[in-house]
Amino acid sequence: VRNIKLTLEYDGTHFFGFQKQKRHRSVQSELELALKKLFQKKIKVIASSRTDSGVHAEGQVVNFHVRSKILLSKIQLGLNRYLPEDLAVRQIVEVPKNFHSQFLAKWKTYEYRVLNAKHRSPLKRFRAFQVLEPLNLNKMKQAARLLCGKHDFRAFEASGSRRISAVRTIRKFEVEQKGETIYFTVEANGFLYKMVRSLVGTLLEIGSGTLEMADLNKAIGLKLRSNIGQTVPPQGLTLTRVTY
Amino acid sequence: VRNIKLTLEYDGTHFFGFQKQKRHRSVQSELELALKKLFQKKIKVIASSRTDSGVHAEGQVVNFHVRSKILLSKIQLGLNRYLPEDLAVRQIVEVPKNFHSQFLAKWKTYEYRVLNAKHRSPLKRFRAFQVLEPLNLNKMKQAARLLCGKHDFRAFEASGSRRISAVRTIRKFEVEQKGETIYFTVEANGFLYKMVRSLVGTLLEIGSGTLEMADLNKAIGLKLRSNIGQTVPPQGLTLTRVTY
Repeated sequence: VRNIKLTLEYDGTHFFGFQKQKRHRSVQSELELALKKLFQKKIKVIASSRTDSGVHAEGQVVNFHVRSKILLSKIQLGLNRYLPEDLAVRQIVEVPKNFHSQFLAKWKTYEYRVLNAKHRSPLKRFRAFQVLEPLNLNKMKQAARLLCGKHDFRAFEASGSRRISAVRTIRKFEVEQKGETIYFTVEANGFLYKMVRSLVGTLLEIGSGTLEMADLNKAIGLKLRSNIGQTVPPQGLTLTRVTY
Repeated sequence: VRNIKLTLEYDGTHFFGFQKQKRHRSVQSELELALKKLFQKKIKVIASSRTDSGVHAEGQVVNFHVRSKILLSKIQLGLNRYLPEDLAVRQIVEVPKNFHSQFLAKWKTYEYRVLNAKHRSPLKRFRAFQVLEPLNLNKMKQAARLLCGKHDFRAFEASGSRRISAVRTIRKFEVEQKGETIYFTVEANGFLYKMVRSLVGTLLEIGSGTLEMADLNKAIGLKLRSNIGQTVPPQGLTLTRVTY
């Protein structure tokens, strides 16, 4: 039995998230359908993260076990032929038997794009969230630095999640502007439910002046699910990298 | 009567080009429909270029005449409310009576994106043309430099166009690679029918080794419609800027 690791890219616009669901189109079900066509048997995949409905990925990692001798390059070509156009395998590699894409993930990186402009951008509409009011970039950079490190992040968690601890370590949180687009890049050893979108929402409120840095300071390490900032919508979010 | 200049952005994926057509959805007809809703009268727009079906724009320029006292900012907001999500007015300005977006255009810039990768990219599929084989970037840069200047470009023209002269001046032709994407940026005082896509197609054949630099040298200034290179598909092409 081989253990195979895939790096996936997908346009989340028309998926109801990664996880298989009965009535809706998901990344997992499309992928498992393609695997079934290729290997002629039912195969279950394990993913590093269950991205939400509408969220994109450039570097989602999944793995699956299969008894087959097909060359890796042939598997990748075959899958990309069977997969729909909004989902593709960008890399394929064989990994040791004990590799587990979810449990062994060390760091995950997400990127969130904000279009800071008064008028709509048709070409960016599926990849960025538009914010009309001017944003103070320096304040947002300062807030991002404050969030770095090991903290209890339950103030940035949406309800409905199952987890033991809310302590996570953010080792990188960058805010950069190129033209009208602001890129938020955050890397952590794990994320709570909707945490990235809650973090970015909070930074945006600091950037627009709705929230003060002191409020943020209070929220970090707060042992309440207070949800200090708004949760921004999914189309701006992309899972860019998972490292092991 | 005021003369108003608009800078448009559009996602060309679901438009049958700029120009109004009877049976198909076009940028012009959507724009004129929005203008009619806003001003309660029929208004005709003039565009710098009639982009083809599937071609995008970040900086298409149009102008129209109207007898109205509505503030420019209100016109822009109103149009962006009436326009579909794949078309928007990014800038608005009032211009002198004699301004004509087509006849007075001095320089136009197009960008063409090529995904040089073995596997599909779902997130780039509407903005780039995929080329599987490796491309020699230096050869393409050299060919682009050769094409700069004032030449008879009829070897790079698709049939079906009406024009007096095929002489055009390319003042900039850059080829740059960022990750898997190669950006071709070409600026000229005008383009023949499908000329950008024919130029890029030719450069790609030079990059892959199908064509030699000597063939290109022969084609420049050739007084025949020979179409030396393939014409690449529209989704990679974006009209980025028009200057007056």
